[in-house]
Amino acid sequence: MTPSREEIVSENREYTLFSWSVQSAANPITMVGGHGSHFVDADGNEWLDIASQLININVGHQHPKVIEAIKKQVDELCFAAPAFATEARGKLGKKLAEVTGLAKSFFTLGGSEANENAMKIARLVTGRDKIITRYRSYHGATMGSMTASGDPRRWPVEPGIPGIVRAFDPYCYRCPFGKEPTSCRRECVSHIEEIIQMEGPHNVAAIMVEGITGSNGLLVPPDDYYPKLRALCDKYDILLITDEVMSGFGRTGTYLSTQHYGILPDIVTSAKGLTSGYMPLGAVIVNQRIADFFENSMLWGGLTYSSHPVSCAAALANLQVYEEEHLFENATLLGAYLAERLEGMRASYACVGDVRYKGLFTVIELVRDKETKEPLAPFNGTSPEMQKLAGHLKSKYLYAFSRFNMLWICPPLVITKDELDFALSAIEEGLALVDEIIGARQVVSADD
Amino acid sequence: MTPSREEIVSENREYTLFSWSVQSAANPITMVGGHGSHFVDADGNEWLDIASQLININVGHQHPKVIEAIKKQVDELCFAAPAFATEARGKLGKKLAEVTGLAKSFFTLGGSEANENAMKIARLVTGRDKIITRYRSYHGATMGSMTASGDPRRWPVEPGIPGIVRAFDPYCYRCPFGKEPTSCRRECVSHIEEIIQMEGPHNVAAIMVEGITGSNGLLVPPDDYYPKLRALCDKYDILLITDEVMSGFGRTGTYLSTQHYGILPDIVTSAKGLTSGYMPLGAVIVNQRIADFFENSMLWGGLTYSSHPVSCAAALANLQVYEEEHLFENATLLGAYLAERLEGMRASYACVGDVRYKGLFTVIELVRDKETKEPLAPFNGTSPEMQKLAGHLKSKYLYAFSRFNMLWICPPLVITKDELDFALSAIEEGLALVDEIIGARQVVSADD
Repeated sequence: MTPSREEIVSENREYTLFSWSVQSAANPITMVGGHGSHFVDADGNEWLDIASQLININVGHQHPKVIEAIKKQVDELCFAAPAFATEARGKLGKKLAEVTGLAKSFFTLGGSEANENAMKIARLVTGRDKIITRYRSYHGATMGSMTASGDPRRWPVEPGIPGIVRAFDPYCYRCPFGKEPTSCRRECVSHIEEIIQMEGPHNVAAIMVEGITGSNGLLVPPDDYYPKLRALCDKYDILLITDEVMSGFGRTGTYLSTQHYGILPDIVTSAKGLTSGYMPLGAVIVNQRIADFFENSMLWGGLTYSSHPVSCAAALANLQVYEEEHLFENATLLGAYLAERLEGMRASYACVGDVRYKGLFTVIELVRDKETKEPLAPFNGTSPEMQKLAGHLKSKYLYAFSRFNMLWICPPLVITKDELDFALSAIEEGLALVDEIIGARQVVSADD
Repeated sequence: MTPSREEIVSENREYTLFSWSVQSAANPITMVGGHGSHFVDADGNEWLDIASQLININVGHQHPKVIEAIKKQVDELCFAAPAFATEARGKLGKKLAEVTGLAKSFFTLGGSEANENAMKIARLVTGRDKIITRYRSYHGATMGSMTASGDPRRWPVEPGIPGIVRAFDPYCYRCPFGKEPTSCRRECVSHIEEIIQMEGPHNVAAIMVEGITGSNGLLVPPDDYYPKLRALCDKYDILLITDEVMSGFGRTGTYLSTQHYGILPDIVTSAKGLTSGYMPLGAVIVNQRIADFFENSMLWGGLTYSSHPVSCAAALANLQVYEEEHLFENATLLGAYLAERLEGMRASYACVGDVRYKGLFTVIELVRDKETKEPLAPFNGTSPEMQKLAGHLKSKYLYAFSRFNMLWICPPLVITKDELDFALSAIEEGLALVDEIIGARQVVSADD
């Protein structure tokens, strides 16, 4: 018999720790099952999940084909150490080479470890030690990946590893170089060349960036950003690592977000959409040059559960569902519709400062004032207005991800237009509530 | 249809990277299934696994009860983000509190991340930043855990994180302090107090040690080592973290290896035997003081697959098998028999320098000469004699773990006496082969 919500919550609270939380403030929703874009809590409520959990459950909840493949693998072979060759491991490696255009995969359990190993590999291959990353980024919580991140979650655990150098972001709405579209000369790339010069090009192993920045603002780069970045890497023989943990595997309608921009990185890291989270898995996918390097050089990395057979089997089934059910096409089609609706919101609501989107990877950035662009909540903080918006969505059993002054809309790739319309209506109601509060405040200000 | 050995190996070699390997030297065994202490390769050979894969598959291969539990959980709920409360998560947290005597668990995917988070937690709780670890140790391959390790696998990726200070080991066979049992004053503990003094006690957050050192020599500490270490931690208000990834969860016949020594650490990390590897899972288990601290302080750590429902369900089933099938009792009983046989080998073979054991966690340390204790292979290297021994075991379809001048015997806890006898006979044959070579060499030396 399934225990009650109270029982589940109390046991979880009493005996387990919640991540990124003050424990006394943890107020967890329960989960007992799901299907498609919905999950079900212990009270039987069905929630529409437009966060895809942590932007990972791309095939939706409890997909029968992935479930079947996991059970089949579990019946055959649950575990083999990383030194062994298994059918699922080889087949997945081959599939990943096909869909990315790269050569070989090293398997981890998640994005943090994938990025740790990508950095290690870049250092071993180049013999150089510095890695350039961006401020508005998140690459994971282990010490190497956390240091590589610019995200404020690194502050409490610094200092981290040596050798990380941070650059600015292609954040056009709030350009760090104070540029407008008319005056922009792609300083977001050119200043990286300045950094390379000052750090010594012969010291820089890699530039590591999220394919499209995820939890730090969903920053869609200008169309020529990646071609310019790729050229910069080629000029100085620096490896380009793209972290596609969140932005890859269908989220934007392609396997890799960089496929929109016509370039190929040297190393790609993946997790999340690789298995849709059904089983933990990460991957570091490298090009032929790097694969060749390790033919005669030691790969100094490993973990007990590298190439876990069940994780590999889950990924294979998950990728098959993407193709059989044309989910990337759905992401592209519904993504275009969502973009149109988001542009409508930008035009209609005072609190919508910017909207950014690529496929079903989208965000709304909220402001107090469109002219000044004052954020609706401060960097690394929240505000009553953002909480009001989040509370409204929750009251509609709409599960969404918001942070600082932003609201992400990143539903499972199986979402239907009707489900998306339901979500967008609830969001527009919430934006109207925020506009009311902002309006009231502005009147008060005028009276002062 | 299952592909052939050739097909599996060629696909694995062509498209995937093998950990801790020069790829051209990777010569993987295939695995297609297993049962109990045996696994089966693609040619149908049954291998007796006395390494428990990577000292993790404690309930043996393809245990039907664990398989059933995984399939049941997969049917119900494959994934929930870490912010959610699930039945499996709460039940596992409760069970871990019961068997360890600690309070709350934070779930990761493996040992590396567990140790990363244990160090983070110790720093957050104490406000101090140095962590004392031991030279002969392995805590994982992510940058924090790798730096904490003394293992030479850290060399190629150094420098790592700041704040790690290394101490010597309770390695009585080759005492770093040059002591014999008669002259020993437990310098292996007292020199840590000297280190604490020199580093500033107010700067030391934690001492982190493997419960019993695993892949760096299986160093069983003297009986009073842990009581003295615990007292030292208490004296300076330093947290004691024991890494029980390899030594815990039945390997030595108890849940925690420190339960043999009557002390309780402040933080325990686990993985491997927690699920027997059927699903990836790690845990950081903390005492009440630490749990209380995070009631009103932020826990700055997390990962997408923290508290993965399927991993938690696999762990619960695995722990139930330990108890229902009395596997810890089997580890104790057969461990005593194994110890007796190992002592016999030490007495009978010239190449057996030392044997160390606790339950089914055992190692043979091989030497060229019992008097000089010259290792049969150098630190961080191998030798023709060690390869001869490994080759002999392989020819008998005996899968064992050897490294440097040591051979581990760490079978699944379900192993029978007959299976163990088969393994020990093969090992004794191998030792006899080594003795022949050593003898032959000594004759050659005498002629020079």
